[in-house]
Amino acid sequence: MTIKAVVFDAYGTLYDIQSVAAVTEEALPGYGEIITQIWRIKQLEYTWLRSLMQRYQDFSAITRESLAYTLRCLGLESDTDTFESIMDKYLHLDLYPDAMTALAALRDKKLAILSNGSTAILNALVANSGLDRVLDATISVDSQKIFKPAPEAYRLIESTLRVPPAEVLFVSSNPWDACGANAFGLNVA
Amino acid sequence: MTIKAVVFDAYGTLYDIQSVAAVTEEALPGYGEIITQIWRIKQLEYTWLRSLMQRYQDFSAITRESLAYTLRCLGLESDTDTFESIMDKYLHLDLYPDAMTALAALRDKKLAILSNGSTAILNALVANSGLDRVLDATISVDSQKIFKPAPEAYRLIESTLRVPPAEVLFVSSNPWDACGANAFGLNVA
Repeated sequence: MTIKAVVFDAYGTLYDIQSVAAVTEEALPGYGEIITQIWRIKQLEYTWLRSLMQRYQDFSAITRESLAYTLRCLGLESDTDTFESIMDKYLHLDLYPDAMTALAALRDKKLAILSNGSTAILNALVANSGLDRVLDATISVDSQKIFKPAPEAYRLIESTLRVPPAEVLFVSSNPWDACGANAFGLNVA
Repeated sequence: MTIKAVVFDAYGTLYDIQSVAAVTEEALPGYGEIITQIWRIKQLEYTWLRSLMQRYQDFSAITRESLAYTLRCLGLESDTDTFESIMDKYLHLDLYPDAMTALAALRDKKLAILSNGSTAILNALVANSGLDRVLDATISVDSQKIFKPAPEAYRLIESTLRVPPAEVLFVSSNPWDACGANAFGLNVA
């Protein structure tokens, strides 16, 4: 078996989603950590439930709705500026410290991201962090109108990169994503 | 609009799933409540993720796997007898105190359950609690091989009861279930 492409999940794998905690803590002192945790849980739940109900909305809308839910759930109020400053962090998430080195070491393969993120916020994130210089493709599930771990999402790798599943290594820190990729037929790390 | 059928979710709506805490607390003192909470969260997560991955397993298998996860996650050990005694409670969940009175008051409508539960455990639960005497049907999603909130699950109401969605009132305490039923086109309480 030859691996010809290595495809990474974005949120939580290459990018540290917990890095929003610095912004939420500054905006709402004492609540940074708890906001970050509830926000992420609800964001995932919304992607799964909307996919199952066949009521897709893009990741950007889901991320806004799950942040609004989180603030309501904690009894916190926020003005529009605060809300938007938190949302803006999603376009400027920190790369994990070893992400760039790892990608550089894999330069002999095709390299890509496959993410639930909607096209606009994903492209902004990739450009802001400089990953556009090392990636062959940034693939959003948005064209399929369904989120990972649905097979339709993973199918985008072959149609974009022209590499069959058996020659792709998919890398994710999210267990449900790793399971979904495996169920689809990708090699998984 | 005339409501001709009232269809209930089972777990958490007619039956108190938190009533397993009495059994888990007896089996593993000090952990009853936390086991019950994690078990339920993981059980739901598995139904959504397996549905999305198109890797259906019935609710009975999912309930076992999510209990095993919960015990591992808490660092608890259990022998086969303890594990089976906890699982057995799922066949003998407590009805909420007002469930039977409410169903009796609705006797002029068709009455049914639509549940993610697999056929065998759902029928056992309904028989053990005496609800088989007041229900016209106990409908399991099992024949569709996908869980609520997928539309295929709610479609079973019309094909079983011969009542169109516009004349059905669906009752659920689970917000994701209420949203799914609403998205499908049922009236929802």
